[in-house]
Amino acid sequence: MHLSIVLVSGGMDSCVTAAIAASENDEIALLHISYGQRTEARERRAFIEIADHYGARKRLDVSIEYLAKMGGSSLTDESIPVTEADLDSKEIPTSYVPFRNANMLAIATSWAEVVGATGIYIGAVAEDSSGYPDCRPEFYEAFQQTINTGTKPETHIEIRTPIIHLSKAEIVKKGIELDAPLHRTWSCYRNETLACSTCDSCALRLRGFQLAGVKDPIEYEAL
Amino acid sequence: MHLSIVLVSGGMDSCVTAAIAASENDEIALLHISYGQRTEARERRAFIEIADHYGARKRLDVSIEYLAKMGGSSLTDESIPVTEADLDSKEIPTSYVPFRNANMLAIATSWAEVVGATGIYIGAVAEDSSGYPDCRPEFYEAFQQTINTGTKPETHIEIRTPIIHLSKAEIVKKGIELDAPLHRTWSCYRNETLACSTCDSCALRLRGFQLAGVKDPIEYEAL
Repeated sequence: MHLSIVLVSGGMDSCVTAAIAASENDEIALLHISYGQRTEARERRAFIEIADHYGARKRLDVSIEYLAKMGGSSLTDESIPVTEADLDSKEIPTSYVPFRNANMLAIATSWAEVVGATGIYIGAVAEDSSGYPDCRPEFYEAFQQTINTGTKPETHIEIRTPIIHLSKAEIVKKGIELDAPLHRTWSCYRNETLACSTCDSCALRLRGFQLAGVKDPIEYEAL
Repeated sequence: MHLSIVLVSGGMDSCVTAAIAASENDEIALLHISYGQRTEARERRAFIEIADHYGARKRLDVSIEYLAKMGGSSLTDESIPVTEADLDSKEIPTSYVPFRNANMLAIATSWAEVVGATGIYIGAVAEDSSGYPDCRPEFYEAFQQTINTGTKPETHIEIRTPIIHLSKAEIVKKGIELDAPLHRTWSCYRNETLACSTCDSCALRLRGFQLAGVKDPIEYEAL
């Protein structure tokens, strides 16, 4: 592929996805989307540092704060607390933002059609996804069909989910193999200075590093 | 259905769609989405007047100006002129905003999941759509599948496109039959005071009223 868009939240998964995209494309265009989540400023800093690391000239920073206005998620609604992780639960956690990934892919597709990109990379993870419905492969297959039917006939854009079947430990190993700037990433749902270590996102990340046998390069408050 | 969301741009098609939704639901929640288009302020006024007409208590007004920042459409990019209508052309017109309807449906789906709405009405029209790819039935079928796979298992949201197979003349007749406030609507892509009568949207609207044998209640500069 020549030019592809990568959705980069600033977390570890999207950083490793960017590393994979950089290895498969001539150029990557990085898209950051904030949605009024608690740790928005810290994630944006991580995005900028990752984009700088890859020398990305095409960058787009979009706010979809209307998702926060709607409420319904502990990530955007201050009245809903960020719960402690329960990695064995089959419930959809309070951090679920309704249909968030579809909103993000729609923006990415619009941008791809304007700049002529042929791929959209997103770092969705099915296994360790805490049960978010919009992280499952079926969702991406359906969205691919939406792109095929909803764009110009001459437009060909493919969604790529290169880490969807990897465990967190495999993502850590992949990142190290590709020399991804994992020390620049931010995953914590709760804090912006030292990661909390106990929210869903921190818990998954820490378990991933532990199983990979590697020390996480970022700092935590409770370790 | 109990509660449904209606996408209301402020144009005639969305107004008639709201009239249909009002007749099929206990309550309608109206969603207006602006995207940095030239006639944004005038369309918002039409939305408010239509929402007032239907006594809608749930209203959401969302800006997705990032679509304008991306460029690529005469509706949002001042450097691309709004072309004169060519209703026989098979080309996708310059007013096409890449993947706009997918962005709008994604927002509507997020809102529907938060407020518990079971339907999303959108006034897409396939026949008279000037060839926009995201106005075709296949696109809505694919998006329905995206909703089914990307929302919570207990969420059931159905996309409704009640006027997709109607001609403009049939839409006019339907609106009159349902007493829709067509005099409150705005369709022109170019002007905000008197409609231009010659852009794609004005030309389609005027032809519709003419074929329906009804006088358009709004004023035009060139008639």
